[in-house]
Amino acid sequence: MKALVWDGKHLAVLERPEPRADAANAVVRVSSAGICNTDLEIVKGYMGFRGVLGHEFVGTVEDGPAPWRGKRVVGEINFACGTCELCTAGLGRHCPTRRVMGILAADGAFAERLAVPVGNLHAVPESVPDDEAVFVEPLAAAFEVLEQVSVRAGMSAVVFGDGKLGLLVAQVLHQTGARVLVLGKHVEKLALLTRRGIETALLADWKGERAELVVEATGSSEGFARAVAATRPRGVLVLKSTVAESAGLNLAPLVIDEITVVGSRCGNFAPAIRALELGTIDVRSLISARRTLAQAVDAFVAATRPGALKVLIDCSPT
Amino acid sequence: MKALVWDGKHLAVLERPEPRADAANAVVRVSSAGICNTDLEIVKGYMGFRGVLGHEFVGTVEDGPAPWRGKRVVGEINFACGTCELCTAGLGRHCPTRRVMGILAADGAFAERLAVPVGNLHAVPESVPDDEAVFVEPLAAAFEVLEQVSVRAGMSAVVFGDGKLGLLVAQVLHQTGARVLVLGKHVEKLALLTRRGIETALLADWKGERAELVVEATGSSEGFARAVAATRPRGVLVLKSTVAESAGLNLAPLVIDEITVVGSRCGNFAPAIRALELGTIDVRSLISARRTLAQAVDAFVAATRPGALKVLIDCSPT
Repeated sequence: MKALVWDGKHLAVLERPEPRADAANAVVRVSSAGICNTDLEIVKGYMGFRGVLGHEFVGTVEDGPAPWRGKRVVGEINFACGTCELCTAGLGRHCPTRRVMGILAADGAFAERLAVPVGNLHAVPESVPDDEAVFVEPLAAAFEVLEQVSVRAGMSAVVFGDGKLGLLVAQVLHQTGARVLVLGKHVEKLALLTRRGIETALLADWKGERAELVVEATGSSEGFARAVAATRPRGVLVLKSTVAESAGLNLAPLVIDEITVVGSRCGNFAPAIRALELGTIDVRSLISARRTLAQAVDAFVAATRPGALKVLIDCSPT
Repeated sequence: MKALVWDGKHLAVLERPEPRADAANAVVRVSSAGICNTDLEIVKGYMGFRGVLGHEFVGTVEDGPAPWRGKRVVGEINFACGTCELCTAGLGRHCPTRRVMGILAADGAFAERLAVPVGNLHAVPESVPDDEAVFVEPLAAAFEVLEQVSVRAGMSAVVFGDGKLGLLVAQVLHQTGARVLVLGKHVEKLALLTRRGIETALLADWKGERAELVVEATGSSEGFARAVAATRPRGVLVLKSTVAESAGLNLAPLVIDEITVVGSRCGNFAPAIRALELGTIDVRSLISARRTLAQAVDAFVAATRPGALKVLIDCSPT
């Protein structure tokens, strides 16, 4: 089969052995897969990953345990042991021996086919088309904020960043009744939110107001100090992006203002699937380009273009 | 009156004008005052403070509103406006226009007398002697962890640092039924905890086990990365020390392991006074030296000596 492979130096669409199904793993024929900023970080050296990239996908189970065959599915990306202390506490996403789809010791979804543990699969409701289902993984990461932080209606919230994740987090927070302000650099991206009644402003116009909840989703390491400054004393700052480089940081303001910093990564899929089924979150406006699997290297070029949002790779055979 | 004054370059016991009482402020004759690491940081440049140092004290109200006159008291250190949004939310400790006793725009307690807003005063129960009451402020800072974090019996907790604050935080956590391990560098300081049934180990012998709750109280900026490494995925790391210098830090582990970092500063006095009244926390073993106000400069020398714990300054007239 064809797959997009990162060998540590080059990205290339290559011929790879077919994945195999067994009692625990299904083989999914990938319909569509999305490029995430983590993919872009990996090709800059993050995680030292080698193999097939991609961890946002929707597809159809082609082989594996009978109940799953023929089902349209999405899949959680952390492949956990299922038996350790964290797994039994329901935190398989943090299993210390986990493999992570397209990120850590497991081939990913920019391929014709993909092996996924059946425990990670979620059926996609009929009413949710592929173009939306492919957003379940990043949307789950946005809902993760609500699993970690108690967000109250009326609470002041600032989201830094108008990238893919920032736009999703902003919508998720807005639904809770929080008073959300999104600060970004791109008028056309912010406009996607303004249309949905969410307040936005250009970063350059920000007056430095402080909020009870701040989400840093710019993906830049310089963003941290600014996000701390935007968090009210005793407020909560959610860090939503893994940044490869280290930064010179002053932690004293965290102590003086008793700020809580919450690192936030992957989320449970169920709330994201439900939101897409209900149609409460707009993901389709986030699609900014489409490529075929054969054009997957160019898809990465498109994803790094200024102003790009989600680039989808159509993985069906051409 | 005599007071220990920091002018930005020198520490000296000087003659200062007497503080004045009015409807809102009492004048307290200081009996005993303790040196805190924040005082040592201030004379290294922290906060840019100039004036009379000291914010841990016990004394007797000499002048001011009638109900307080003659009372033995301790005093909360944040002098808040009382009317802003944070003050009305009960967070006067974070009032943006606050003055802070001996730290920010308000003279402190290393003096014969001290002015304190009456709203900040707490009467000291008769059964609590001065040598214990002088610990109310730092003990309140230790109890602050319990105001910010839900500590459960049986929870694993690691405290880094066997300094004054580390020893107090360890005792407070131990009382909740958490399984506490304290890591430090000083056998004789750790022994104070071992005697009370708290598990301790030398930092050099630490095997890198991870805990659900970690408290960083070493006061060193290098401690942060180690404390992050000691925090279990989805665990909580409490930062208990304000460190003047900045540090090169990598925030990615916070996001990957979804760690919550909680900055923690001053606490309410009530739980600390109650604990001293009940005799559940040992503070007297922490006294390592005593000086008179006339010897206050030497008290600072004693407080920076390796192995030093609390140095008390007797401020009664000699």
